[in-house]
Amino acid sequence: MTDIDSRIGFLMETEKLKSVLRRTQPAHLDRQENSAEHSWSLAVMAILFADLADEPVALEKVLELVAVHDLVEVHAGDTFCYDIAANTDKAAREQCAADVLFGSLSPEQAIRFRSLWEEFEAAVTAEARFANALDRLLPLLQHRAHRGAIWQAHGIARPQVLNRIAPVASISKRLHAYACGLVEESVRSGWLAEN
Amino acid sequence: MTDIDSRIGFLMETEKLKSVLRRTQPAHLDRQENSAEHSWSLAVMAILFADLADEPVALEKVLELVAVHDLVEVHAGDTFCYDIAANTDKAAREQCAADVLFGSLSPEQAIRFRSLWEEFEAAVTAEARFANALDRLLPLLQHRAHRGAIWQAHGIARPQVLNRIAPVASISKRLHAYACGLVEESVRSGWLAEN
Repeated sequence: MTDIDSRIGFLMETEKLKSVLRRTQPAHLDRQENSAEHSWSLAVMAILFADLADEPVALEKVLELVAVHDLVEVHAGDTFCYDIAANTDKAAREQCAADVLFGSLSPEQAIRFRSLWEEFEAAVTAEARFANALDRLLPLLQHRAHRGAIWQAHGIARPQVLNRIAPVASISKRLHAYACGLVEESVRSGWLAEN
Repeated sequence: MTDIDSRIGFLMETEKLKSVLRRTQPAHLDRQENSAEHSWSLAVMAILFADLADEPVALEKVLELVAVHDLVEVHAGDTFCYDIAANTDKAAREQCAADVLFGSLSPEQAIRFRSLWEEFEAAVTAEARFANALDRLLPLLQHRAHRGAIWQAHGIARPQVLNRIAPVASISKRLHAYACGLVEESVRSGWLAEN
């Protein structure tokens, strides 16, 4: 197998992300979103919002991080952020998935993709915290576009949503304040339970 | 309306790309691909293949270009690359779509997004030619994964596919030679008509 063969084999494996379904629905659409189209939205958000970051972020790195951040779901599936039980073994499941998925690449490429995924997961660098913040902000916007139908179906209330978006404050106080305003508006509109 | 309101309004408009269907099918899946998940695949490809470019490309710009390259389809729809009639007014339809879509942003942001889209369309810079090459390469890989079902359904033969991937040679002779090899293999396998 040539080097290009293994890259294309990897790319074809990543196609499976298009059938990994999230709990969110795209705005305007009456179906669940898949993790591939979700990842694309984070790229558009990164371009749209990068200048709102309180400390400068390298856009190239943010775009790389959001492109690969959900790749391990190809084998590990999506884990609903509010599902406490499923989140207990999420890290172990995703490490195994990463071994299989990235192991199909050349050592150099495997290290590159795995490093990007681990940087996103660790959420330490400014770019990873920014990418994580976008990942937490998008579902709020989508749930709001659907007048809170998913929040209501899963019994999600204001404290959980505020807790979920809290890390946004560490990358942009302005975006965090805006998001908190949307949460309060959703409560007032009857789309999100107060407690 | 605040500046953040207009960015989020734009982002919610871009959600519509998730219902714009292409003629391609993702590998492994028995359904049409949408332009949002397609755009994400190009980002993964850019990271995977950037080092194969014959002249260096700035990855940040490539990732920005692939994220926005299909946005105007939100209003203009997808145009099948082998549909000669539909391609005659594609440019005019997409210019109108761009006016509406980008016109909802602040002037500064509108110029930024429109410039990226126009750079992709012009295919002059190394980054735009690279992004275009990926856009031409991915469907070949997907059609091959489906043993040529879409080629056969639309009466597409080898000369059209070779013509479609010809620009890949201008960014990577190695990738182009590899892609031509896949075309010949597809003909030998009976998935793609010879003429």
